Amino acid sequence: MDNPQINLDRLISRIEKLGKVGARGDGGVCRLALTEEDRQARQLLRRWLEECNAMVKIDRIGNMFGIREGTEGPATPAVMAGSHLDTVITGGQYDGSLGVLIALEIMEVLEEENISVSHPYAVVNFTNEEGVRFTPGMMGSKAFIGTGNPRDLLKVYDTDNEITVGEALKEIGFNGEEACGFLDVKQFVELHIEQGPVLEREGVQTAAVESVQGIYWTEYTVAGEAGHAGTTPVKMRKDAGIVAARINSFVRHLSNEYGAAGTVGYQQIEPNATNVIPEKARLRVDLRHPDKKVLQKCQQLLDDFVEEASITEGTQFERKELIRVDPVQFDRTLVELIERQAGQSGITIKRMASGAGHDAQMMVSVCPSAMIFVPSVGGISHNVNEFTRKEQIEAGANLMLQVVLELLQ
Amino acid sequence: MDNPQINLDRLISRIEKLGKVGARGDGGVCRLALTEEDRQARQLLRRWLEECNAMVKIDRIGNMFGIREGTEGPATPAVMAGSHLDTVITGGQYDGSLGVLIALEIMEVLEEENISVSHPYAVVNFTNEEGVRFTPGMMGSKAFIGTGNPRDLLKVYDTDNEITVGEALKEIGFNGEEACGFLDVKQFVELHIEQGPVLEREGVQTAAVESVQGIYWTEYTVAGEAGHAGTTPVKMRKDAGIVAARINSFVRHLSNEYGAAGTVGYQQIEPNATNVIPEKARLRVDLRHPDKKVLQKCQQLLDDFVEEASITEGTQFERKELIRVDPVQFDRTLVELIERQAGQSGITIKRMASGAGHDAQMMVSVCPSAMIFVPSVGGISHNVNEFTRKEQIEAGANLMLQVVLELLQ
Repeated sequence: MDNPQINLDRLISRIEKLGKVGARGDGGVCRLALTEEDRQARQLLRRWLEECNAMVKIDRIGNMFGIREGTEGPATPAVMAGSHLDTVITGGQYDGSLGVLIALEIMEVLEEENISVSHPYAVVNFTNEEGVRFTPGMMGSKAFIGTGNPRDLLKVYDTDNEITVGEALKEIGFNGEEACGFLDVKQFVELHIEQGPVLEREGVQTAAVESVQGIYWTEYTVAGEAGHAGTTPVKMRKDAGIVAARINSFVRHLSNEYGAAGTVGYQQIEPNATNVIPEKARLRVDLRHPDKKVLQKCQQLLDDFVEEASITEGTQFERKELIRVDPVQFDRTLVELIERQAGQSGITIKRMASGAGHDAQMMVSVCPSAMIFVPSVGGISHNVNEFTRKEQIEAGANLMLQVVLELLQ
Repeated sequence: MDNPQINLDRLISRIEKLGKVGARGDGGVCRLALTEEDRQARQLLRRWLEECNAMVKIDRIGNMFGIREGTEGPATPAVMAGSHLDTVITGGQYDGSLGVLIALEIMEVLEEENISVSHPYAVVNFTNEEGVRFTPGMMGSKAFIGTGNPRDLLKVYDTDNEITVGEALKEIGFNGEEACGFLDVKQFVELHIEQGPVLEREGVQTAAVESVQGIYWTEYTVAGEAGHAGTTPVKMRKDAGIVAARINSFVRHLSNEYGAAGTVGYQQIEPNATNVIPEKARLRVDLRHPDKKVLQKCQQLLDDFVEEASITEGTQFERKELIRVDPVQFDRTLVELIERQAGQSGITIKRMASGAGHDAQMMVSVCPSAMIFVPSVGGISHNVNEFTRKEQIEAGANLMLQVVLELLQ
């Protein structure tokens, strides 16, 4: 097993084949969880796993596992790699799928090269990571680690309120027998596209993901007083729109000052007429940071600012916490191992935090976990134009292979 | 004629009667120009004018005049007072109507007291000041001064594209014979509600309106780049929303610095999703100032700021001039006469600029003109809750009477 490499042609050909399942016709993929398209994708994965002698197991929430035994038998904990096959409505071919197919490709290499290792190796496809058709997302990994109760999750209805997770699983024939969490996992590594522009712009091939940013969404509703834009002197105004504008500027200031990712993506003003002073403004602040203490501090500074800005303008405001997800730290030893392997393979790498959520952040509660990112061309994701180049896939896949090989020893 | 006074009970009773024509049932009035409701209001005014011996004349655009001859005959130029009877859809009983009814009340006093003056006195109801059903507004005064060509204006269709001004005038029987501008006017004075909060908040009874603010509306469309709120570092963003926010703050800064009235009442961002960096922002800036040079300077500073803010963020922008109406200065001698008369009558008064447009601003091109404002309770106008108190009406009407009496000598 001197310096084994992944087979890029086989991997690319599988990305293309899988990309046809749920193809939208515009280059994108729509493969919502537990639909007919998801069934076809799962069938394809099952066939490929079985073709390289993996034992396929399915748990009660529909998570699929392809397991290759190690020399020390099934009682030894497994090294697991994988991601998810479901997509959003306007999805691409890479988000989730790439991580599953690279995990599968590693299985192929292990078999082809007859690599004998002590630990089992498992490829995983987690059910419903995207959370589009059924809420919450990361459903499969949540059930696997025990955060979500499978019995409750199976009763969750889809957004059309027509079918439950349990019924949909039965319909596609992936209502498995295994208990959630049945597999004893030693380490988990997930390869994923970055879904952002950093690697591409910095010309770095891969990232060792050391954390997942915490996400706080807060909605502020500012109530001012409508008034005629011509006849109401500025000093007598209670302009909800100007308060919203100042909040937006402050969010940017916080981002620069504390290295946070702060965004006002949603904003509405009322009555939204050119010559009427806004009487109402509703805006949502998306605030993210990989360090919980810094994130909390930013949120506190933001809340203080909103209060002060509102008092200054003479408006009232309401505050509603929409999302509070704390940051997750990946396993430091595993992150360093990824960096070391990249260095030995001549692959450029940088540490970074993930801005989006992933199944790996669930897995940290049961085993050392980490992620590898490969570049997203143009930083584009959740979009039919999502793309990662062949050579970028190759570098990421070979890095994953070396990491898994080391963990399997 | 020692210190004649208006008859408040008669005036209030007429405000109430007129307020029933087009009553909405919620306290408000909907009396769009040249509708059946407008016809009824005009009939009522004609009857009241004829009852106090005025000669009623109607011009080709439907402007109504009630004329009382002076001792020197019809060839002498007239002192004219009035406003308009049409309202917006959610109008009140005071905007326009109050100015017409007070002008009528002055005619009553002249007759009752047998006041003999050298000049004719004319009460005017200008056609379609509001411009809701037919565009442009201030149609009657524009035709009267010759800015608008009556032949063209008569061909203007309503917003439903069903009937022209000329056809509507015929339908309500107010297609007059007089040429537009037939009456030689010596001075024009218009009393109107303030439509803003200044007089009420400062506890002043009346205003001598010395100017009408110029109005510049400019639409800026900022084009940035959409991106994931979690995965796109702040330094790599081209956030159209933050540029819009900064423009809004700068408009407020300009207002404070230069005494302008600057408003961002309309703003849209796209795609307007909490976790997507705005790729587009469209906002309209309403900028007003009574001094043309200052208004132009503010607009230039604003344009410069938008360019700079856009370059800083890496966005592009487009700029569209929606409205450019220059300020209008009323006649200084007339404004001072109004102030002097207020002083002699013990009525408190302050000079101010009008934030909204009025027929009087058209009249300045043919004769010395000015306006008197009375308070709007809560600064509310173009709203069914529009209101001016009896005692406020009384003070304004008596001031108008004294002013007209002096001009008529």
